[in-house]
Amino acid sequence: MELKLEDVDDLCTGAAFLGAGGGGDPYIGGLMIKEELRAGRRIEIVDPDTLDDDALVIPTAMMGAPTVLLEKIPSGEEAIRALQTVEKALGRKATATMPTEVGGINSTIPLFVGARLGIPVVDGDGQGRAFPEIQMETFAIEGVAGTPMAIADEKGDYALIQTEDHHRMEWIARGITIRMGGTAYWSAYPMDGTQVRRASVKHTLTLARKIGHIIRTARSRKQDPFEELETFIATTSYGKAKRIFSGKIVDLERQTKQGFTMGTVKIAPDDGQGAPCTISFQNENLCAKSNETLLAIVPDIISILDAETAVPITNETLRFGQRVVVMAVGVPPIMQSPAALKQFGPEAFGMLETYVPLNG
Amino acid sequence: MELKLEDVDDLCTGAAFLGAGGGGDPYIGGLMIKEELRAGRRIEIVDPDTLDDDALVIPTAMMGAPTVLLEKIPSGEEAIRALQTVEKALGRKATATMPTEVGGINSTIPLFVGARLGIPVVDGDGQGRAFPEIQMETFAIEGVAGTPMAIADEKGDYALIQTEDHHRMEWIARGITIRMGGTAYWSAYPMDGTQVRRASVKHTLTLARKIGHIIRTARSRKQDPFEELETFIATTSYGKAKRIFSGKIVDLERQTKQGFTMGTVKIAPDDGQGAPCTISFQNENLCAKSNETLLAIVPDIISILDAETAVPITNETLRFGQRVVVMAVGVPPIMQSPAALKQFGPEAFGMLETYVPLNG
Repeated sequence: MELKLEDVDDLCTGAAFLGAGGGGDPYIGGLMIKEELRAGRRIEIVDPDTLDDDALVIPTAMMGAPTVLLEKIPSGEEAIRALQTVEKALGRKATATMPTEVGGINSTIPLFVGARLGIPVVDGDGQGRAFPEIQMETFAIEGVAGTPMAIADEKGDYALIQTEDHHRMEWIARGITIRMGGTAYWSAYPMDGTQVRRASVKHTLTLARKIGHIIRTARSRKQDPFEELETFIATTSYGKAKRIFSGKIVDLERQTKQGFTMGTVKIAPDDGQGAPCTISFQNENLCAKSNETLLAIVPDIISILDAETAVPITNETLRFGQRVVVMAVGVPPIMQSPAALKQFGPEAFGMLETYVPLNG
Repeated sequence: MELKLEDVDDLCTGAAFLGAGGGGDPYIGGLMIKEELRAGRRIEIVDPDTLDDDALVIPTAMMGAPTVLLEKIPSGEEAIRALQTVEKALGRKATATMPTEVGGINSTIPLFVGARLGIPVVDGDGQGRAFPEIQMETFAIEGVAGTPMAIADEKGDYALIQTEDHHRMEWIARGITIRMGGTAYWSAYPMDGTQVRRASVKHTLTLARKIGHIIRTARSRKQDPFEELETFIATTSYGKAKRIFSGKIVDLERQTKQGFTMGTVKIAPDDGQGAPCTISFQNENLCAKSNETLLAIVPDIISILDAETAVPITNETLRFGQRVVVMAVGVPPIMQSPAALKQFGPEAFGMLETYVPLNG
């Protein structure tokens, strides 16, 4: 399936929705691939179920702090260099690339790479949403080796990392990302077709596009976008979507540190009465609480949406006074296994709360 | 020339002397190569002037904080892995290795690698002493490319760095070193024979051995080791050695931070009268002052020696109450050029003092 120019904005909006506040600015991601399509390059999206068993799929992505991304915009060459460094280490050319997560820019980086290198992009990813760390991948859970991993910056510098430990891959790569200025572009988890089918969350580019379409068109169809999102998501493997809070942002604490955008946002209820909702984030929203009541927690998706348009607001663009609706979304079964929860459940973030799945 | 077991301690002592307080613990370095020699392996030291023009010399070294080295002792395999990673990137085997600096462990890491891989070790290095950062190399000043650079740890993890900027090579490698636990082993600046001859400080392994011999034997020959050192060094390309202070350590501030051992040591004069001497260090001693009078400054070598034995005391083993003699040593002409001073003169360390060479 070829990606059309008119679908780009929907894909970016939906990816930001599934990105849970992280995954990078969708506007920048959209610009990058619209430019490619306007220049006449093609972006081919392939179903993982149609991949040859011996395909070589090399995922590509951005890592670092989305706050930095706003100021240090990529040319796209960084991710290509990362992928080519992995190719060189393997002694073989990629037959496709794919996203490592769903997110405003991390869904589009592989599309850019695919357009430039003339290779297709697999419709799926390794997180089914966005998570802040690169070992938080269904690829890792399903036994795919992370390295050779390459990481590249806008200056033309790059590094190739070798380790058998997914957490150390993240730890070392994050150290490099910090020294590269807070954002960098990476390629890792090379897979064959069989591995992609077993280890990925499938069809998430298509899902993102459909979600973005609902958000863009609901009002003009005289529908409530929040209701439509809830109804539509109930028909997907994500199961359940639910508005958990609505109100106005009354406090925001946000820092760029340790290679992440870290912070907390506080939302006062619409009626001015009752307890506010507090959402903590490490790039992505991790936990939403109100008055010590748990509203939602990782791995479930917590997205903050504009109260009027339902357009997702990524955490680097949260502002005091915004009127928002907070929506929680369940995750597919592959992301709820004990191994998955160990990799990206509350405990993986040092939180003491127990995971209460929305899809209970 | 083959390195004999009985020369190892002298070499390590002399290397620590030229190491200016840094370069890593000479005891650990000595143990590592004595073990190799006792196991029957050979260590061949070759004169750079006899290298084939098309030799492939790949230097090896440790980097990080010498304070950490004391607790995280290398197996030696780390440096071998680093060298082999550079070999793989170049698609060619090293015909020799060599030190990047003179220092207690950094003179012996290449000897270990040479013993294990059965390749000779070039008698020379890239700093003519020890400096804390890896762009502070005569190799860099003379236009040798730093990368491919490899960096490896004791867990079997490693990374290959590519950049055209020597400072960024240091910056990124230091970030990795910190994440690897504060010490790591590296290989970079691959050179042919012609480059080694042009870009290295020659014959520093031999020089270190001779200095160590003086320190070990002077007393038994009823000579003053400090006087003998001054006399001997006057016959070498280093020109001048001079006692600049003697006294007792009365204050010591030392931290492990940013991948270095940083601090200041204060020495009160023997007579208890007069101003103390203060020496600042970043791994290596950078500047010695007394009462705002500059006694010595980089790139000249400042070494703190035991007042009785003249054995050099590396900065991670400085202790309150030690009686010491501080000796300053000039550096060879290759290390005093404007380009060299830019790379490792006072300004390179953010110091405002003007370099007043001991060899004025």
